[in-house]
Amino acid sequence: MKQIGLQLSSAAQSLYEGVKDLPITSPHGHCDPQWFVKNEPFSDPASLLIVPDHYVFRMLYSLGVSLTDLGIGVKEADRNPRAIFGLFAQHWDKFLGTPSRGWLEFTLYNTLGVETELSAETANMVFDEISSALRKPELRPLDALDTLNIELLATTDAALDPLDHHEVLSSGTSGRVIPTFRPDDILNPSRKGHAKNIERLGEITGAATSQFAEFLDAIASRRAAFKSLGATATDHDVPDLYTEWLPQAEIELLHQKACTGSLDRFEARRYYGHMLIEMAQMSVEDGLVMQLHVGSRRSTNETVLKEFGADKGADIPHSVDWVHGLNALLNRVGNNPNFRLLAFTLDESTYARELAPMAGHWPCMRLGPPWWFHDSLNGIRRYLDQVVESAGYWNLAGFNDDTRAFLSIPARHDMWRRGVCAHLSDQMERGVLRRRDAERIAPMLSRDLARDAYRLNGE
Amino acid sequence: MKQIGLQLSSAAQSLYEGVKDLPITSPHGHCDPQWFVKNEPFSDPASLLIVPDHYVFRMLYSLGVSLTDLGIGVKEADRNPRAIFGLFAQHWDKFLGTPSRGWLEFTLYNTLGVETELSAETANMVFDEISSALRKPELRPLDALDTLNIELLATTDAALDPLDHHEVLSSGTSGRVIPTFRPDDILNPSRKGHAKNIERLGEITGAATSQFAEFLDAIASRRAAFKSLGATATDHDVPDLYTEWLPQAEIELLHQKACTGSLDRFEARRYYGHMLIEMAQMSVEDGLVMQLHVGSRRSTNETVLKEFGADKGADIPHSVDWVHGLNALLNRVGNNPNFRLLAFTLDESTYARELAPMAGHWPCMRLGPPWWFHDSLNGIRRYLDQVVESAGYWNLAGFNDDTRAFLSIPARHDMWRRGVCAHLSDQMERGVLRRRDAERIAPMLSRDLARDAYRLNGE
Amino acid sequence: MKQIGLQLSSAAQSLYEGVKDLPITSPHGHCDPQWFVKNEPFSDPASLLIVPDHYVFRMLYSLGVSLTDLGIGVKEADRNPRAIFGLFAQHWDKFLGTPSRGWLEFTLYNTLGVETELSAETANMVFDEISSALRKPELRPLDALDTLNIELLATTDAALDPLDHHEVLSSGTSGRVIPTFRPDDILNPSRKGHAKNIERLGEITGAATSQFAEFLDAIASRRAAFKSLGATATDHDVPDLYTEWLPQAEIELLHQKACTGSLDRFEARRYYGHMLIEMAQMSVEDGLVMQLHVGSRRSTNETVLKEFGADKGADIPHSVDWVHGLNALLNRVGNNPNFRLLAFTLDESTYARELAPMAGHWPCMRLGPPWWFHDSLNGIRRYLDQVVESAGYWNLAGFNDDTRAFLSIPARHDMWRRGVCAHLSDQMERGVLRRRDAERIAPMLSRDLARDAYRLNGE
Repeated sequence: MKQIGLQLSSAAQSLYEGVKDLPITSPHGHCDPQWFVKNEPFSDPASLLIVPDHYVFRMLYSLGVSLTDLGIGVKEADRNPRAIFGLFAQHWDKFLGTPSRGWLEFTLYNTLGVETELSAETANMVFDEISSALRKPELRPLDALDTLNIELLATTDAALDPLDHHEVLSSGTSGRVIPTFRPDDILNPSRKGHAKNIERLGEITGAATSQFAEFLDAIASRRAAFKSLGATATDHDVPDLYTEWLPQAEIELLHQKACTGSLDRFEARRYYGHMLIEMAQMSVEDGLVMQLHVGSRRSTNETVLKEFGADKGADIPHSVDWVHGLNALLNRVGNNPNFRLLAFTLDESTYARELAPMAGHWPCMRLGPPWWFHDSLNGIRRYLDQVVESAGYWNLAGFNDDTRAFLSIPARHDMWRRGVCAHLSDQMERGVLRRRDAERIAPMLSRDLARDAYRLNGE
Repeated sequence: MKQIGLQLSSAAQSLYEGVKDLPITSPHGHCDPQWFVKNEPFSDPASLLIVPDHYVFRMLYSLGVSLTDLGIGVKEADRNPRAIFGLFAQHWDKFLGTPSRGWLEFTLYNTLGVETELSAETANMVFDEISSALRKPELRPLDALDTLNIELLATTDAALDPLDHHEVLSSGTSGRVIPTFRPDDILNPSRKGHAKNIERLGEITGAATSQFAEFLDAIASRRAAFKSLGATATDHDVPDLYTEWLPQAEIELLHQKACTGSLDRFEARRYYGHMLIEMAQMSVEDGLVMQLHVGSRRSTNETVLKEFGADKGADIPHSVDWVHGLNALLNRVGNNPNFRLLAFTLDESTYARELAPMAGHWPCMRLGPPWWFHDSLNGIRRYLDQVVESAGYWNLAGFNDDTRAFLSIPARHDMWRRGVCAHLSDQMERGVLRRRDAERIAPMLSRDLARDAYRLNGE
Repeated sequence: MKQIGLQLSSAAQSLYEGVKDLPITSPHGHCDPQWFVKNEPFSDPASLLIVPDHYVFRMLYSLGVSLTDLGIGVKEADRNPRAIFGLFAQHWDKFLGTPSRGWLEFTLYNTLGVETELSAETANMVFDEISSALRKPELRPLDALDTLNIELLATTDAALDPLDHHEVLSSGTSGRVIPTFRPDDILNPSRKGHAKNIERLGEITGAATSQFAEFLDAIASRRAAFKSLGATATDHDVPDLYTEWLPQAEIELLHQKACTGSLDRFEARRYYGHMLIEMAQMSVEDGLVMQLHVGSRRSTNETVLKEFGADKGADIPHSVDWVHGLNALLNRVGNNPNFRLLAFTLDESTYARELAPMAGHWPCMRLGPPWWFHDSLNGIRRYLDQVVESAGYWNLAGFNDDTRAFLSIPARHDMWRRGVCAHLSDQMERGVLRRRDAERIAPMLSRDLARDAYRLNGE
């Protein structure tokens, strides 16, 4: 079996030796908490590696493979996992050069211990090897936390989520699996069912959420519920970045319209822009770290959306104006020492132009790691090359994998750690860092900065 | 004579040996089909290398050289080719670091076999050497196809072009020189003479093009005429990317106005935005690959435009929003397996942010190679570094030279092939590709992907 | 003591040896002319290195350090320089990876000759060493020009500046310290006190500046005054790039409003856009080189602005559209051989997309070096990688340090020269440049192009 992952120079390798076995902190991702409560084996290779991974099936779809043939939009019972896996294996070479290829190789050969090299010809054999591996007790979700050296895993949970799984996990895992408060459904009027979600929030909390003041209280109480189960952060999907603080009368009026789903596009934008500032203010109060994931235009393929639903590989980034977009929010709470804002971008042109200068000024801001399409070897390199000079290392939020593919977590952290060590050894070679500096920063970027950024050290 | 072109590591050199002599497929460019019909020698060094090359004279103009002194806007009979070439040679050092320098060196020393190194002092001698070379039968345009190892060359031809040259070439070269359908003049209301062009389309096709339905039929019949002479593609210059599907009544109304040249700026934008979708739909029908060259603001220097005409080096790129710009078009035909769209950008910030994610999702999309200012060593590097991770290699359209400088075609393909091999050997060194993968991808990027993208293999 | 600055390969080092001791030309910066008139020692390490350096205190503020504790907004008499320096030293590691670290190391260990390595523990010792150094006669401002090998230094001076210091310097330094005409306060209506500044311009020049024609004459006479004291350039801070030539009646009307401070935002934009063209026209007349520093949104932190004033680290870049923004200006004077425009951007995405193509066409344009956040090792690399291919080397304006930290001038030029040599040796290794070309271009980029761009050679 070939060596897995970015090949390192000897200086980089030496740094990597010092961080490769550090526990994995995964403070942001999309695993299903239910997995850890049930602790059942993952069902089959296709349902584990292909069907839920939009990185994988989007590429195949772009090359003419039918989503249905890949099991997308097909009930689990009606899927033929072996056929799906075989179809994927036929196109294994199409992933050459992509991070998916690197992650999948690591997952197959390291995490799952597959010994046969994947190809169209060996698909069945590899399928069987994976299937065997999945039956091992140490790869059941809860056990795998130990097996994979994951010390902490945060999931992302809708504000209306009953949190029943997290209630079990809170005691059962002693805070090792924690929720994250994601209120998009109740805040963003362009979300489907927004008005109804406000109503449901009222039902859950017993508040008259059609009244703006009670709506805010209801949100605060949900945040408190999340926090009591270990949450240290909120997360916001912000397709178009805009914030504006509205006068009391105006936001109340817009909230009335929001409750009846009658905001026009322009009002909806201002309403959501105001609500993001309300969230920032609540973060000042309750200390939950605010994550903004900005700039993905969701579900741009209407046909795919209609037939297969959201998150099917048609979310495409567009350009972002962080300076204007965050202006109102930052000028309201940006100097408050209790506030922490983690910024994630898909517009790399903003790294050096906007985000690093902002992080190098505002006390609240830290920069999230390269996100999504940019969580890749080149993406990591460009990120570090472009943000460190203006933001320094201490304004970075370390790494998070942001994945829904649980077993790929070690793969993703390994790619980051290798990328970090390649960067640091390059800095040493150029005379920018000394060995002792690089040796100090490597574990910070690998683990400590994430723990600090997400307030996981019990601040 | 110094070695020509990007110096390669031994691993890269070894890949390069495998692709450097592959036949050249040139599926997009701006050669004049008449050259191949007449097959007369190119007249003189200045008319060959300086006067028609906006890369060259723009740089000299930027440094204070008069365009007139370079023969621009001067009738061929009134030009002093030797003086022009001497003026150029005086400024030969000004091209250091630019792709023009690399292309010209390759063209002079390799393609034309010049033995004297160019300098201000040797201008006359080099002029004479080039002149001799041009008289060699094997460098006459048609013969040079063999000499230069060009298996296929596509020109770019206005929709109203009588195609008389291509009729000769279609039989005479057995489809080795083919046309490309370029309908900007009849589609884009901001083109000079747009209304008159619609009228002329009617004259040529016998259709009442003032009626929208007949206008569409007339376009389809021109596409068919191009296709019958070997065309496999259309090409569209799109200064500002915008598409919108208009209701029947509205597009008919706008077409009436278009026919009288009375569209206002906003209407013109919507009209052209609709027509691009009509073209996409015709591509679904007739299989012609649709090329979009987006984001060049043309002729930004009004004085130069007035005195010397278009294409005089004052076309400057600006930023592009591919996601919003193509939204209507893609949602109309983007999932149709018959449709193929090749996207070319001058806004490199869109490579990783928009184009690669789009190409990695939409079945119709392939990414054109680095275009124009970015067809350069660094441009090639940035392109491959930024698109491959999200789009993979199989969603790329290989290379095309896009040149009107016929004898520079080998130079341009050589620069691309060297750049590709440097990239692939870097991927090998990093452990991203194995040798056998790199050896497979090198000829794909050098030739095969272009043939496939442009449907040149007789699909 | 460790070696200072970017470590170079032997080929790069050999180029560097040829340029490292060239005299420093500093044609743009923000030193106080008074320093050179008074020629008193700099007072103390904190007032020299921390309090005036927004690169330094912004980073510390972003990490939770109070600006007041750093002496910002504190009267010099009330500051405790030793305590401030100690606080800074505690956070010395936070600058790892930033250009500030490199500049400060060079300034401390090379320029000031400090022998103790800075750390939290050695802060007091280093403070004392700096203090001693500052008392040396050869580091007094005027003497330091010789000591630091600075052959020319331009300051940046408001149009309303009485120029009394520069009158002394003009004769006293034989044109070694020269002013630059910076008219933002009288041209840009969004500047505080704009209307009053127009009035003051009238008082100074004896013109009725409420009349537009006399206003223009008054500006021309200020330009002449600057020029008579050695100025060769003007400088313009342009937050949002926009130019438009207004008809006589309209600009006169807007000027009336400007004089009463009653322009609305849209009018203000057009007014400033017109005035920039007036400035360009005056440059054609008087030959002063026009510098445009574009794209910084100033003082984005309202609290910091209110409490501490402008220039406190909260100026954040945003995206720029150079093509549309300069259109009106360039089409009015861009082809005039007397006109020279130096463009500085904070939006690196414009390097290859807009600025290099523009500089490679317009005779008037030269590209300023990487500015501000991008004046860094990676910034220099990205700049040269992205502009040279389309603009060539001869359309670049060399380097300027743009600093208000006088003693850091050698550090900044050294970083640039090292970056240039690293770039050129990389070009040699790739076969793009030959050694003799690189040896010729190294001193051009280090010094000669700046002298030429700023017309310092007595054109």
